[in-house]
Amino acid sequence: MKVVNEIVDSNLKIVQDDDFFKFSLESVLLPSFVQVNLRDKMILDLCSGNAPIPLLLSLKTKAKIYGVELQKEVYELGCKSIELNNKQDQITFLNHDVKDLKTIFKGDTFDIITVNPPYFKVLDNSKQNSNAIKARARHENNLTLDDLFKISLYLLKDNGKFYMVHRTERLVEILDLLRKYKLIPKELQFIFPYQDKESKLFMIKAVKNGKSGMKVLDSIYANK
Amino acid sequence: MKVVNEIVDSNLKIVQDDDFFKFSLESVLLPSFVQVNLRDKMILDLCSGNAPIPLLLSLKTKAKIYGVELQKEVYELGCKSIELNNKQDQITFLNHDVKDLKTIFKGDTFDIITVNPPYFKVLDNSKQNSNAIKARARHENNLTLDDLFKISLYLLKDNGKFYMVHRTERLVEILDLLRKYKLIPKELQFIFPYQDKESKLFMIKAVKNGKSGMKVLDSIYANK
Repeated sequence: MKVVNEIVDSNLKIVQDDDFFKFSLESVLLPSFVQVNLRDKMILDLCSGNAPIPLLLSLKTKAKIYGVELQKEVYELGCKSIELNNKQDQITFLNHDVKDLKTIFKGDTFDIITVNPPYFKVLDNSKQNSNAIKARARHENNLTLDDLFKISLYLLKDNGKFYMVHRTERLVEILDLLRKYKLIPKELQFIFPYQDKESKLFMIKAVKNGKSGMKVLDSIYANK
Repeated sequence: MKVVNEIVDSNLKIVQDDDFFKFSLESVLLPSFVQVNLRDKMILDLCSGNAPIPLLLSLKTKAKIYGVELQKEVYELGCKSIELNNKQDQITFLNHDVKDLKTIFKGDTFDIITVNPPYFKVLDNSKQNSNAIKARARHENNLTLDDLFKISLYLLKDNGKFYMVHRTERLVEILDLLRKYKLIPKELQFIFPYQDKESKLFMIKAVKNGKSGMKVLDSIYANK
């Protein structure tokens, strides 16, 4: 059992904007879940928002880190944060559509892909946030899980590692889709908002063309 | 977060035999995970061993409980425990092969099925326990997960509940097989031997022809 304030420990400066969204719990937890080896030279973070995950990853590796954010306004916040922390040499931030990354990168390029994607399926009756920028960040308007896993399979090297945080209510669907795209689940960790409540989020590590066999790590509690 | 000694609280007498096997942690936890409503009139426990699950369930419901154990020597221990606790009226214990239960029960008979099945696949090189009775209890010599889910689908009523405890290393395979047999996962709970160790066991509730959407409940720690 881990409590979050034991995990969060950095002096990063992140530029936030209340009109868009804030530095989230999952943006902090996912980088701590990622294992980076000395062999890992190329890392890609998808759906980067204002770049918290690339910035936090830069504290634990010298590898080259790419971040990708589609929305211009959010992308610009990320650029400011990267400059503010003097990480321009290590982090390259792209204002691009994840689905079209094949036009930029060759296949089998990355050792690690990380992603904190939009969480909610678009349903006809789903009440999307009236702020269009927030809505695109929270809903799969532009990028489905299927799209995401397909491009990740393409961009990862063989045995490359895929790390994602997502809503626990979509776990079963995600385990199924990962396998469809030969991203074999290896480690799973649940995040609970409080003790005695159900889990809202989970983090998963999958390996491209990995062997089957998944561990479930000790749970994380956001509050005691 | 729950610690086991908060859960185990009964005055049952269970007849054990060191040559066979003991009352296990999972036999105690599974009955506490089972939700029995007043509407539930017929319960079936498969692979019952010396009957701990039927006995513990009898403390929380007036429903009729059937237990099934294939191995004669273990079945006889269960019968003794049922008599010792004066539960013969509520619990009917059968010395039978789970695969052949269609010869006894009609389809759509049970509101609830519980099972703590043999955990290990039989592989050519697996070192099975030299004691043949223990070996049959631990390995899928006689009953695969596929067999188990197939017969459970047949015996459960529509919307009937299926509860199982199993090894976490087989979770992904089990989620996949449950869906194949229209046993839709609804609740999942992980058991950890200690804090900061990986999970060894999990409990799952599935519903026959249920709607998709699974909760992950707060974790259980066997030791602090």
